[in-house]
Amino acid sequence: MKSIDINCDMGESFGKYILGNDSSLMELVSSVNIACGMHAGDPLVMQTTVRLAKQKMVAVGAHPGYPDLQGFGRRAMDMTPEEVESFILYQIGALWGFCRGAGVDLVHVKPHGALYNQAAKDAGLAAAIARAVKQFSQQLILVGLAGSQLVNAGEEVGLRVVSEGFPDRAYNLDGSLRSRREPGALLHDPILAAEQAVRLADQGIRIESGSGLRFSKVQTLCIHGDEPGALENATAIRQVLEKHGFTIKNLV
Amino acid sequence: MKSIDINCDMGESFGKYILGNDSSLMELVSSVNIACGMHAGDPLVMQTTVRLAKQKMVAVGAHPGYPDLQGFGRRAMDMTPEEVESFILYQIGALWGFCRGAGVDLVHVKPHGALYNQAAKDAGLAAAIARAVKQFSQQLILVGLAGSQLVNAGEEVGLRVVSEGFPDRAYNLDGSLRSRREPGALLHDPILAAEQAVRLADQGIRIESGSGLRFSKVQTLCIHGDEPGALENATAIRQVLEKHGFTIKNLV
Amino acid sequence: MKSIDINCDMGESFGKYILGNDSSLMELVSSVNIACGMHAGDPLVMQTTVRLAKQKMVAVGAHPGYPDLQGFGRRAMDMTPEEVESFILYQIGALWGFCRGAGVDLVHVKPHGALYNQAAKDAGLAAAIARAVKQFSQQLILVGLAGSQLVNAGEEVGLRVVSEGFPDRAYNLDGSLRSRREPGALLHDPILAAEQAVRLADQGIRIESGSGLRFSKVQTLCIHGDEPGALENATAIRQVLEKHGFTIKNLV
Amino acid sequence: MKSIDINCDMGESFGKYILGNDSSLMELVSSVNIACGMHAGDPLVMQTTVRLAKQKMVAVGAHPGYPDLQGFGRRAMDMTPEEVESFILYQIGALWGFCRGAGVDLVHVKPHGALYNQAAKDAGLAAAIARAVKQFSQQLILVGLAGSQLVNAGEEVGLRVVSEGFPDRAYNLDGSLRSRREPGALLHDPILAAEQAVRLADQGIRIESGSGLRFSKVQTLCIHGDEPGALENATAIRQVLEKHGFTIKNLV
Repeated sequence: MKSIDINCDMGESFGKYILGNDSSLMELVSSVNIACGMHAGDPLVMQTTVRLAKQKMVAVGAHPGYPDLQGFGRRAMDMTPEEVESFILYQIGALWGFCRGAGVDLVHVKPHGALYNQAAKDAGLAAAIARAVKQFSQQLILVGLAGSQLVNAGEEVGLRVVSEGFPDRAYNLDGSLRSRREPGALLHDPILAAEQAVRLADQGIRIESGSGLRFSKVQTLCIHGDEPGALENATAIRQVLEKHGFTIKNLV
Repeated sequence: MKSIDINCDMGESFGKYILGNDSSLMELVSSVNIACGMHAGDPLVMQTTVRLAKQKMVAVGAHPGYPDLQGFGRRAMDMTPEEVESFILYQIGALWGFCRGAGVDLVHVKPHGALYNQAAKDAGLAAAIARAVKQFSQQLILVGLAGSQLVNAGEEVGLRVVSEGFPDRAYNLDGSLRSRREPGALLHDPILAAEQAVRLADQGIRIESGSGLRFSKVQTLCIHGDEPGALENATAIRQVLEKHGFTIKNLV
Repeated sequence: MKSIDINCDMGESFGKYILGNDSSLMELVSSVNIACGMHAGDPLVMQTTVRLAKQKMVAVGAHPGYPDLQGFGRRAMDMTPEEVESFILYQIGALWGFCRGAGVDLVHVKPHGALYNQAAKDAGLAAAIARAVKQFSQQLILVGLAGSQLVNAGEEVGLRVVSEGFPDRAYNLDGSLRSRREPGALLHDPILAAEQAVRLADQGIRIESGSGLRFSKVQTLCIHGDEPGALENATAIRQVLEKHGFTIKNLV
Repeated sequence: MKSIDINCDMGESFGKYILGNDSSLMELVSSVNIACGMHAGDPLVMQTTVRLAKQKMVAVGAHPGYPDLQGFGRRAMDMTPEEVESFILYQIGALWGFCRGAGVDLVHVKPHGALYNQAAKDAGLAAAIARAVKQFSQQLILVGLAGSQLVNAGEEVGLRVVSEGFPDRAYNLDGSLRSRREPGALLHDPILAAEQAVRLADQGIRIESGSGLRFSKVQTLCIHGDEPGALENATAIRQVLEKHGFTIKNLV
């Protein structure tokens, strides 16, 4: 029997500023990555989101990011590995306080935005993130881009690592994500996204290189919650995956 | 054999901004209250301070405050009890991440500044703080002003509560702290502060009222680390307490 | 010929967080109060909003607030008058930079949220705000709650002061605003709000007291842009005012 | 008669966090660059610093930086030119509010830290800064690293531009600053710094290249105020410059 995890970023509201549609999306995913108050989220939002996740029975992960609320954590910042390590540990702990308060397990950690992207390529940054996660708990699962330095760094320190694929993002022939600045980077059509979800879940990411063709395994699929059409996309992806025999199941 | 705890606020630096003299003061106290990134402190400072506390073998507590770095958490803010509960839980969790990373126990929680002062008088705010601490762990000790609403609220939810006295602050006849805006509120002379420390440790806070004289017990003495003369004051207080037969011992 | 100003708070988005419906509302008002980056708004939002106001030919005012983005400036904070003075001056200057860049006049200053409410009652705070406005320019108009300390303070330093009324808020018999915590504080029905708008524009605020009945003049009406139904309310208010012979005109 | 400007960054304190020795250093310089509340400084600090500058009769400039207080604006951030333009304009306006309040002219703008360094090499960023300064006022002087893209960008939009040299930083043979990560990047010896100050003021920056030797003119010398020895360095530099016949004079 085949299974796959579907994850989504949540808890990205801040004070009076509301973002996303957390309650509806939680019906469709098996894991949520909750913002930790640096690039998005605040303590009340985090507490509410953890409680909602408990009620909807989805697995909870931390979604730490750069300390840049105005830029939503999407701007590369030149922080040292030591700084990044401490900022990640801070955010995991903060979220864990709400998990403990609500009687919910903290399952995984997935970095956000520019931190995620930089850690895919920068081995020193990736190692700092892996160290932070491991310091908090060796039981935590580290989620990273399939084939990235972050996945390598997690494996190196002995963490359980999970590779992520994106149903609604175009991939280059070499298996990397097409830049958002290029045309066609986003698959807006729910049918195309759902078809790619099945391919990613079945085969993984297709990588062509001089030495031939190979596939990089994917264990979790990311749904974007903050874009128009998020709900339709997520619904289509889940339905088509189930039609192809996949059980949607968290990482535990 | 008599014993008393001496505590001090620490980890109040922020980025390039350095405050206090943490390393020297840790030689003189038995417990430290570490700022959690809202009114002071940042992740790197917190990590460094927790590691220093481990090395100096002093007990570690969380020192949560209002989210007001520019005002150093000293301005009253009209937050709802629900907001305060979540902001406290966030900060305890964040500090606990560093404790866990360093293999150090988190022993107590002591609110900072305006939050401490408002929670001394406002039962609803005090209850919110007590709920946050208890949600995190029933093993945590809550530190509050002797005779305050915060002490009551902690006892009501079944937490171990510890009453605090201030060797370098003048007390009114009714046992309340003299306002910092009145003359003589601060005892700058280390000898006077040390004498008051011994009285507080021996008898507690003296309270005169219509119904006569009574004493409110004090289990921890607070040393201020951010004022000129902090080191001399702390040294005198410790020496005179030891001369009077007190062992300086944390709350565990 | 009768005229009245209609004002609305705008530019309250922040980074990825979008708030309000500025472009549509600008069609209906004669003045806008633009957030200055402390309780809401960021530099890019401010620049965009000033340019939009120029295009829609509405008068631009500064809308300074407490430095509390998470609380949207709606929480009372215990800042000193000196602090408030400098925080207001900072925010006026910041907005003025964009006015100067866009070739737009800065017409008025209206404090936001808790600052507005506290300055209605606290003469020291009101005086600090008036000082800040006057330091920037004696040509600036200060907008305050009709009958408030802020209005008094502005007059005392020789500023032109404008009194504000709220079409969608219930008033007590003594002319004060009914607290938002009481039932019926908000008039959700556009017809009721429009009728109150006409009464306020015609007669001012009705004040009953031991010494009889009087009316406090109102020169600007505030429309709320951040609530559902804002557009319907504003449309009804404007139409009914015009039907009653009022020209909607800014304060210049 | 020879003259040169000496400038220093000031107003970098924040709330309870005190940095630098502004009052003493103002005796030794002719221009100050005042932080504008993003990488350092707060409204009260800015107001105080502008008033102090007026009293000491030194020229006032804005010192805008990245919105990164925790990193003191020293971390490269991937902001778009549009964002940078608006963030600069915001900060100039904010400082100008205090200048206007104090009756002081705003003379120049010098970007801070990572923004200064990135704008030295990135033409798009440099152009955004120049646009922001020009939008505020064509009378403002733009200060940039001698030979940098920022200097070019300022000239291109018709601003008066001033080239800066660093007496206490080592230069490479090609005229670029030696990286702070390399040994010997800082001249800690006041005598060496003073000698370099005279060379920079007399000849400019020495640049060796394939096409021979040339010198790039320097019109202002930067003194660092936040390092130990800042006062000794500044004193030596000023004295030796005066001994060599230079009048220390601001840019007006």
